[in-house]
Amino acid sequence: MHQLLKEIRHNPLLWLLVFVPVVFAAETLAPEAYTLLFVLSVLAIVPLAALLSHATESVAAKTGDSVGGLLNATLGNLTELVIALAALRAGQYMLVKASIAGAIVTNSLFVLGASFLLGGLKHHVQEYNRASARFQAALLFLAIVALLVPSAVGEADSPAAVAFTQKLSLGLAVLLIAAYGLGMLFSLKTHREFFGSAEHAEGGESGEAPWPLGLALATLAGVTVLVALVSEVFVESVQEAAVAFGMTPAFVGFIVVALVGGAAEMGSAFSGARKNRLDLSVGIALGSAAQIALFVAPVLVLLSYVMGPAPMNLQFWPGAVVTMMIATITASSVTNAGRSTWFVGVLVLMVYLIFAMTLYLLPPQVQ
Amino acid sequence: MHQLLKEIRHNPLLWLLVFVPVVFAAETLAPEAYTLLFVLSVLAIVPLAALLSHATESVAAKTGDSVGGLLNATLGNLTELVIALAALRAGQYMLVKASIAGAIVTNSLFVLGASFLLGGLKHHVQEYNRASARFQAALLFLAIVALLVPSAVGEADSPAAVAFTQKLSLGLAVLLIAAYGLGMLFSLKTHREFFGSAEHAEGGESGEAPWPLGLALATLAGVTVLVALVSEVFVESVQEAAVAFGMTPAFVGFIVVALVGGAAEMGSAFSGARKNRLDLSVGIALGSAAQIALFVAPVLVLLSYVMGPAPMNLQFWPGAVVTMMIATITASSVTNAGRSTWFVGVLVLMVYLIFAMTLYLLPPQVQ
Amino acid sequence: MHQLLKEIRHNPLLWLLVFVPVVFAAETLAPEAYTLLFVLSVLAIVPLAALLSHATESVAAKTGDSVGGLLNATLGNLTELVIALAALRAGQYMLVKASIAGAIVTNSLFVLGASFLLGGLKHHVQEYNRASARFQAALLFLAIVALLVPSAVGEADSPAAVAFTQKLSLGLAVLLIAAYGLGMLFSLKTHREFFGSAEHAEGGESGEAPWPLGLALATLAGVTVLVALVSEVFVESVQEAAVAFGMTPAFVGFIVVALVGGAAEMGSAFSGARKNRLDLSVGIALGSAAQIALFVAPVLVLLSYVMGPAPMNLQFWPGAVVTMMIATITASSVTNAGRSTWFVGVLVLMVYLIFAMTLYLLPPQVQ
Repeated sequence: MHQLLKEIRHNPLLWLLVFVPVVFAAETLAPEAYTLLFVLSVLAIVPLAALLSHATESVAAKTGDSVGGLLNATLGNLTELVIALAALRAGQYMLVKASIAGAIVTNSLFVLGASFLLGGLKHHVQEYNRASARFQAALLFLAIVALLVPSAVGEADSPAAVAFTQKLSLGLAVLLIAAYGLGMLFSLKTHREFFGSAEHAEGGESGEAPWPLGLALATLAGVTVLVALVSEVFVESVQEAAVAFGMTPAFVGFIVVALVGGAAEMGSAFSGARKNRLDLSVGIALGSAAQIALFVAPVLVLLSYVMGPAPMNLQFWPGAVVTMMIATITASSVTNAGRSTWFVGVLVLMVYLIFAMTLYLLPPQVQ
Repeated sequence: MHQLLKEIRHNPLLWLLVFVPVVFAAETLAPEAYTLLFVLSVLAIVPLAALLSHATESVAAKTGDSVGGLLNATLGNLTELVIALAALRAGQYMLVKASIAGAIVTNSLFVLGASFLLGGLKHHVQEYNRASARFQAALLFLAIVALLVPSAVGEADSPAAVAFTQKLSLGLAVLLIAAYGLGMLFSLKTHREFFGSAEHAEGGESGEAPWPLGLALATLAGVTVLVALVSEVFVESVQEAAVAFGMTPAFVGFIVVALVGGAAEMGSAFSGARKNRLDLSVGIALGSAAQIALFVAPVLVLLSYVMGPAPMNLQFWPGAVVTMMIATITASSVTNAGRSTWFVGVLVLMVYLIFAMTLYLLPPQVQ
Repeated sequence: MHQLLKEIRHNPLLWLLVFVPVVFAAETLAPEAYTLLFVLSVLAIVPLAALLSHATESVAAKTGDSVGGLLNATLGNLTELVIALAALRAGQYMLVKASIAGAIVTNSLFVLGASFLLGGLKHHVQEYNRASARFQAALLFLAIVALLVPSAVGEADSPAAVAFTQKLSLGLAVLLIAAYGLGMLFSLKTHREFFGSAEHAEGGESGEAPWPLGLALATLAGVTVLVALVSEVFVESVQEAAVAFGMTPAFVGFIVVALVGGAAEMGSAFSGARKNRLDLSVGIALGSAAQIALFVAPVLVLLSYVMGPAPMNLQFWPGAVVTMMIATITASSVTNAGRSTWFVGVLVLMVYLIFAMTLYLLPPQVQ
């Protein structure tokens, strides 16, 4: 506990934790002040996500490489999962899907591109482990093919088509989780020597000393509950706040939710790039994207049978599928070379900007 | 003849030849028992395809490298061609196209993925000739672009659109056959040194001694006639049998026909992978896919003017084009590295499973 | 001036300059003879484009590498820009877009493929600088993503959709010009060592001695005016001439305009390939395509606010977007290896032929 307080004192990001009680107070006093609640909940989620990320890594560091890798791989995007669960329980499937698609695109374009740019402005040419990048990009490609199919086939609205899309989504969810599990077996067990540098990087992601196991587990449990509670406020206020800010719901789901949920990891990715440890940055960017596509999204489909008002399917609107596909192709092409310069970062960021600009300008009725 | 009998005794697959007379007897006695006729004709085609494959290779081995390569390249998918011709004569163009698309997808995903998986379970990392894989993948890419165009443009039903699609298909068929011919000139003549290991592999595909020329030619002629006769039964019974088995016609055309027609080759590809001769497996998988796309499909268009009730075009339904395109991109990406592990096989098989599952679940009215 | 006359005497292509006065005379005498005016204006533009190209390179050679590179990069496709401006002023936005798409496809497929084929028929295997080809292909990919978005989203015809497409096109135009500018900073300044061989090639593009600065600047100014004047005749006559020749307007815009505007550069690319200087050919092919996509097209959007009857957007019809995307993927895949043979050229030309054949056969009402 003492160590937790010490860390809070040294890490200015964690001072934002003061907004956690503030958001609960505000919700009780002014439950209709959506814009205020939205801003406060964003400010509260960011430091909680950072704590969650550090706690996960600390548990992982204590439990040895294989179990630790497994933990990092399943809990690495816990914040995104908890936010999506809050939206799922509220029946806001559109927001769930927008935040899944947004997290995939934001990680594989914005985080990757900004890492390349920030690293490239300091270092002339940077090298990193191609095998690891190719592995994550291949997983991501499989997931996008899986998401493409129900979206391409199930446009009809007949009861038969709806039932087909639901059965297909369930099958695809099981298949994606199986692929993710086999991928962990491959990268953590049978062929772990391929992933040398990337694994070393993951271990020291935060660059700080790991916490004792008890503290880490307690933090993991406690903070998850807090994130869940704040996410409820966030999900309730996000739609009205978006209108107040003049943003379309698609833009909020796609861009804002993804940036809020991934803020802590982005910090690690960018500081890794500046320190010329690009393996770490590429691992976070593509690893998070793959994890959300192959683990978080299918788990949400399965959980929707238990927790949601109705089962959720994997049918995305065509623009989202095309965007995810182009993001995957872009990330896969630029990481294929195993080296980068600042201009590669510019190119990847430009692709992200094209999508962000389109979503920002999109009139609600065209969507 | 003695040698043929000896081979039949030693190869359990060929014991299935007993079903050839059985299927003819059954057709005379019970011409309406479609499910039975379907099962019997499948059981009869598999050993005939194996014999055809061995006979083609024996003729190829006796006639020297260039003529032999030519023969393998034109007769290598004779079974698929003969089955498709039976469907063509019956005017079942939907089945012809489904079996073309299915053979391309099955070879470039299922055969390739299963070879990688079976080989990778025995060997830690396997290497193969990249140049050969790239060549076949490039041919396949050209063919898919050619199939994409009439499918994308010719959706309208006006007489002008129909005439345009037909003219375009004829032009594309000529162009694809020309590309295939130039590709043989390149790989067998002007730049044959690039294809070293793959060619060696093709020579010993069956791992058995070649037959004398006379026996091989007689088998080639006789078995082709038998395949043609059994295919008639197969084509007549396949639709009703599909309904009886609860399968959609798309699933049957796409998956079942492709597996039946290619069973013999698949055996060679898988045993090659187990023996760490992955050049052989990749050559069979991508070579067959390219051959069907650039030779069998265009030849069927040309023959439809002579043998079919009406000319056939190259217009596929959008789902088939997208599936073939994703199969080509997948095969081309994974073979680009020139080495593979078991997990690459899993990924490729998963892409195949996604398509197979979709087709299996697809309700007939959504198709 | 003496040097200019000397060059004209030695270069048979420049003898076509005699058609410049002829086209003006014909327009005065027979302003309705569209087919004649079309043929004459084509014959007059080809030598003017060659002069323009040589003058630009001469100014570039005199002004040092950085300014020279900048000049080549902005004025390298001056002919295409001037022709498109004539069409823009006449309000023929369809022709402008068809010529943009056509120039991208012609350069990245026809010029690239024909260079590989012509070079490969003389040399067994040819090598070139991969880094430069990858850079141009990446720029091209970014531009195609930018063109894909308004075409995919803005299909609706409502006023809101039209306003959205216009705002988006303006934003994308600014973004593409910024990417192009940063690309020049990268290739001419911060990482110029990557582009060694390609830059050397560009310097000696025409293989002839550069002109003195005064002559070059005067030629640049005078010939630009002549091209502008002849382009007016060309744009006015092209539609009626197309009908007379039995060609669709799409075929003319896509194929004929691109071949006319780029004739001079094609000559350099092909002669470079024959001399085993494939860096030069690939640089011209992909460089021109990237320049038209990232500089000429956005500049035309910006100029349409000043010079056109109405603002132009970047919305292309779906077939054009798919064609440009396949052209980019094809060019990017084949140049990825850094070496080529005659058959690579055949494959790339076949992709071009598929599109040219489709456009030629396309009935006007299906378009």
